[in-house]
Amino acid sequence: MVHADASNFATNITKEQAYEQVFKEAEALLDGQRNWVCNLSNTASLLWHVYKSLPSPSSEVNWAGFYTLCPTSHTTLILGPFQGKVACQTISISPARGVCGTAASTATTQLVADVEEFPGHIACDGDSRSEIVVPIVVGGVVKGIIDVDCKVVGGFDEVDRSWLEKLAVLLGEGCDWP
Amino acid sequence: MVHADASNFATNITKEQAYEQVFKEAEALLDGQRNWVCNLSNTASLLWHVYKSLPSPSSEVNWAGFYTLCPTSHTTLILGPFQGKVACQTISISPARGVCGTAASTATTQLVADVEEFPGHIACDGDSRSEIVVPIVVGGVVKGIIDVDCKVVGGFDEVDRSWLEKLAVLLGEGCDWP
Repeated sequence: MVHADASNFATNITKEQAYEQVFKEAEALLDGQRNWVCNLSNTASLLWHVYKSLPSPSSEVNWAGFYTLCPTSHTTLILGPFQGKVACQTISISPARGVCGTAASTATTQLVADVEEFPGHIACDGDSRSEIVVPIVVGGVVKGIIDVDCKVVGGFDEVDRSWLEKLAVLLGEGCDWP
Repeated sequence: MVHADASNFATNITKEQAYEQVFKEAEALLDGQRNWVCNLSNTASLLWHVYKSLPSPSSEVNWAGFYTLCPTSHTTLILGPFQGKVACQTISISPARGVCGTAASTATTQLVADVEEFPGHIACDGDSRSEIVVPIVVGGVVKGIIDVDCKVVGGFDEVDRSWLEKLAVLLGEGCDWP
């Protein structure tokens, strides 16, 4: 049975070890459950709690969650499950708006050390200073994105990119997308 | 434009005033946006942050979010957007399991002062000691539930019931349900 303990992470492990635990927990959650809302909701919780267990800058993450392809407009992302403060409801993919729109329109990860230097950045939350956005691609189509914001500049690195990209593949294959 | 500031609440207001602000913020979020995933995701954020701004026992809330009617089995609830630790993925409505299943099967709010005394309580998180579950009813059909857990006994009262029931009506009417 799924249990809240899955959100508990030791505080003396490396970021790689922490992400490995997230990935294994996510694999277990998706085993036998393909509902995308259910799976993204629990995965957002895993991500939020792993960042809070890590030292700075990861502990300064202030938003972790998902946008998905809008069911009524395939040139728009719509807010999915997340943990953090209230967020923008829709983001344009075409024309691409901000970090999320760019990741979705190009189907490539955006690792942004300082969002204030990113052209067309959308300031849903002025506290956010760095961001990583990873597309979830299924059969060549971007079905959604993983979006994580951090309150400090340079909050993310290649370890985040590598593991979030693995997680995006797992979610892409493990969910029935609308 | 929707902004993270909607999640900020003054710390010197009453619970009634805090819920009134949540309700107004939710009304504004739902104005022109009927996507249920988007709306439940932002509403879970509003609820989480309002509880954290209030004194105990509200500040001891450890889970706030939603289960909805499972698209593949109408006798099952499936996890929706939430804030808090990883949660049970599905809950049976028929036979009714635990506080959530009972709220959904009877279409009535369950205000449980001590979950350990509730027959058939599901311990997704052993930290939860009290719970309130409010059905979201649309056209006579339970489309989902609002579920809030608290780490202390007696975490909820008639003020919570009254405002969460108003919020359930707003969400029921303001979203396109699957």
